[in-house]
Amino acid sequence: MTNQLSQIKTIFFDADDTLWENETHYRRTEQAFFKLIGLDAENGTRELLHTEEANIPLYGYGAKGFILSMLETAQRVLGPQKAASVTPEVLHLGKELIRVPVVLLAGVKETLQELAPFYTLAIATKGDLLDQQRKIQSSGLAGFFAQAEVMTNKTPQAYLKLCQDLKTSPAQTLMVGNSVRSDILPALEAGLQAVYIPCKDGWIHEEPPRTPLPDFITLTQISHLPHLLKGEQYA
Amino acid sequence: MTNQLSQIKTIFFDADDTLWENETHYRRTEQAFFKLIGLDAENGTRELLHTEEANIPLYGYGAKGFILSMLETAQRVLGPQKAASVTPEVLHLGKELIRVPVVLLAGVKETLQELAPFYTLAIATKGDLLDQQRKIQSSGLAGFFAQAEVMTNKTPQAYLKLCQDLKTSPAQTLMVGNSVRSDILPALEAGLQAVYIPCKDGWIHEEPPRTPLPDFITLTQISHLPHLLKGEQYA
Repeated sequence: MTNQLSQIKTIFFDADDTLWENETHYRRTEQAFFKLIGLDAENGTRELLHTEEANIPLYGYGAKGFILSMLETAQRVLGPQKAASVTPEVLHLGKELIRVPVVLLAGVKETLQELAPFYTLAIATKGDLLDQQRKIQSSGLAGFFAQAEVMTNKTPQAYLKLCQDLKTSPAQTLMVGNSVRSDILPALEAGLQAVYIPCKDGWIHEEPPRTPLPDFITLTQISHLPHLLKGEQYA
Repeated sequence: MTNQLSQIKTIFFDADDTLWENETHYRRTEQAFFKLIGLDAENGTRELLHTEEANIPLYGYGAKGFILSMLETAQRVLGPQKAASVTPEVLHLGKELIRVPVVLLAGVKETLQELAPFYTLAIATKGDLLDQQRKIQSSGLAGFFAQAEVMTNKTPQAYLKLCQDLKTSPAQTLMVGNSVRSDILPALEAGLQAVYIPCKDGWIHEEPPRTPLPDFITLTQISHLPHLLKGEQYA
């Protein structure tokens, strides 16, 4: 593994929950929403996830689709008349979610500073184009990245396209992210190397599929990454 | 003008209402929405545009932001209780709008076929990333384009970035689109050349600013473009 990692010249980072907090904000919004529609966390999560998964082909990933799915869930759970009183509040919760300031995860800035002189760095994220670009700008991290790519879906083809854009071979490229399903498996399938850094508030939709997983490295924190790449002891 | 146009090597096309119908679908959705909230076209347009313009910084351009703005407008115009009965129908109208099949405008395919052997072609569009990518795929036109760029906003910087991506100089690049505000003025400011092809159903937000306009060429139909570029008579 160390030998392969020594080839790495380019590093792609997932953004939400890899560089900055994201799911925490969604979970907090969901808690407020479940309270509004009178469901506990378990039933609320089931109902909302049911709507979201049905809507992903139409709405994609990101805050606006999430707001529309909350509104639709309220309609289904409460019926139109009872849902009436919650619609304005859901629209408000949605705007608050979009406006929430970017909070970097621990060690992110220092890690990027340490890696930037030696590697080409890029962002590979999915979600609303406008939301992600706003977050990248207000994160203060934009200067570290040669490219920030917002993908509709993290397929092996999308990772290969980004390698082409940056003129890097997949084998010399490392994908770093918090989702086995979106960041690790398709990157490995495309021939990239991959490092998994789980975050505390995962989204159920992003949980790993229940199939045998290939080998990949898991780190508990992003600040271990430069040590791993240099072949140093880090844990 | 002919001398300058003879330098052109790369052509950027706006997508919605330049390559395929779009505003027609929005106008039809709006008519249905105004009927639901009991407003005539004039008052409905004023109320909806008021909401949309306030929300653009948060929601950006595209169908999902449009749906959220219709919902918010219904709340403001009718009040939460009366709006209750229209919310499910607005969510439905929104899904229909996203699902509507792509209809190419007259002459588009033939024009691209004529230009493709001689020019590098690209799409420069704004809107929801997922929506636009779906439309590009289902249009059957994807093969004509070296790149299809979905921008959050059509600024001079965004046009320059796309020129860089395609390794073309602005002076040798032509932007073709149906919006003076988004397609023509910022492209000219970036040093590109520009051709304006108005469409019949404009969006009020996209109307030209009431300031003196620079010189640019207006065509009544896209099929005139190859003739214009060859310096032939076309009207």
